[in-house]
Amino acid sequence: MTSLARLSLNQKTTNRWTVSEAVDGCMRAGLPAIGLWRDPVHETGVAATARMVADSGLRVSSLCRGGFLTGADSTQRGRALDDNRRAVDEAAALGTNSLVMVVGGLPQGSRDLRGARGRVADGIGVLAPYAQERGVRLALEPMHPIYCADRGVLCTLGQALDLAERFPVEQVGVVVDSFHVWWDPDVLGQIARAAGRICSFQVSDWITPLPLDALLSRGMMGDGHIDFAVLRRAVDAAGYRGDIEVEIFNADVWAADPDEVVATLVRRYVAHVLRD
Amino acid sequence: MTSLARLSLNQKTTNRWTVSEAVDGCMRAGLPAIGLWRDPVHETGVAATARMVADSGLRVSSLCRGGFLTGADSTQRGRALDDNRRAVDEAAALGTNSLVMVVGGLPQGSRDLRGARGRVADGIGVLAPYAQERGVRLALEPMHPIYCADRGVLCTLGQALDLAERFPVEQVGVVVDSFHVWWDPDVLGQIARAAGRICSFQVSDWITPLPLDALLSRGMMGDGHIDFAVLRRAVDAAGYRGDIEVEIFNADVWAADPDEVVATLVRRYVAHVLRD
Repeated sequence: MTSLARLSLNQKTTNRWTVSEAVDGCMRAGLPAIGLWRDPVHETGVAATARMVADSGLRVSSLCRGGFLTGADSTQRGRALDDNRRAVDEAAALGTNSLVMVVGGLPQGSRDLRGARGRVADGIGVLAPYAQERGVRLALEPMHPIYCADRGVLCTLGQALDLAERFPVEQVGVVVDSFHVWWDPDVLGQIARAAGRICSFQVSDWITPLPLDALLSRGMMGDGHIDFAVLRRAVDAAGYRGDIEVEIFNADVWAADPDEVVATLVRRYVAHVLRD
Repeated sequence: MTSLARLSLNQKTTNRWTVSEAVDGCMRAGLPAIGLWRDPVHETGVAATARMVADSGLRVSSLCRGGFLTGADSTQRGRALDDNRRAVDEAAALGTNSLVMVVGGLPQGSRDLRGARGRVADGIGVLAPYAQERGVRLALEPMHPIYCADRGVLCTLGQALDLAERFPVEQVGVVVDSFHVWWDPDVLGQIARAAGRICSFQVSDWITPLPLDALLSRGMMGDGHIDFAVLRRAVDAAGYRGDIEVEIFNADVWAADPDEVVATLVRRYVAHVLRD
């Protein structure tokens, strides 16, 4: 097993590449896996993408993303459920069993966090059996509290596990994303608790000063404050043997030459994530 | 008791006012209390400030701030302890028993979060008896995880209480600041746990999109996503009877006429914090 045997390029990291370009980029760099996003997959077409990754031999480590289940009225929630069923179908067609769920924030004008969290649980309850029937697991992504209001009302790994554990392990799991969880005083204990539920391990760094756009605030591993090896060892100890996705939302990274970005992330992955 | 009987102006909210102007502004608006910051107090002088607030009849609800105990070497930590002892002395001189502690982030280049948290505990252990002898309680402020790297490695109320509970209740307590804790799925349980340890209750809102400068990202109550009444009722139920400080770091608020800011915060306090 080479050192890159579990390294996956989440295609958001090379945001300007099409699916085809990202697949080729992974092959050139010797990466065995790719994490796909629905928007670029739709541009290429789901069937065409499925053929392309099958022909390449790459694993699809995850599909991003379903979720946004917190809509205030039943029409919105019904539309969200329909869209999530399509996302499950796409994950199955693409050959990945992990659909990353960004659960959604507070609806416009609402301050009812408890209610929004309740609607997430309801939506997951509807979708989980549908996903299982198609061989897909819903991967709940706890998000950094910076996104609680507008993106993800699941804020900690513990909270995500509280929800996931209401369902069979084949139906609902969790994402461990370094950027979202590194600060949590209980993160190592919760990673241990997540044994059997970890669908995806994603890495990017927390950098300061925080970039101006909160959505583009992630850094290349090694540029910030996160001790990746501590988290990677905990995820290993919890029995996770799947891919490790590098997912970086950052305007500077997106502006750079994508092949150079991939070369850099390979070096940084070895130096910072695999480090003993 | 009027509706404003517990309302305190944290002077950061009217950042361009001197201590004297802020004291006068509180008197004009009928506020009974003020939260002071060390820098403007030093500009006026500690003794002069103490006389001014005593003459005004205002309570000093807290002094901000001590802390920054995570320095990498013993020289830095020794300097920080000396500065914290001066902060305790100043709190005593100003007649407040709450010294707000912003504990500090990771030292430059360090990724050792556990080590930094350990140094915070060590520093609090040194300072707590010194503070108690002077009638001052160290008020640990858990900060929003957005500040974990560069400002405060205590990220949740639960984590702050884990540390506070190592000390007598007269020595170490906690700050409940809505901006820092509102997202926490366990916040209500932890506020209940904090009974007897709550030194200060501070309010400002979480607004989106997040303002560009993460340090100036707080909003006026009602402009954002926080349900203040839920938190205020929990703090009441925990037996806290002290002042409620409005502390807003925001460039737009700082640019506005301070008297108008105070008038607005009085209205918003009644509408959003005191709301049944």
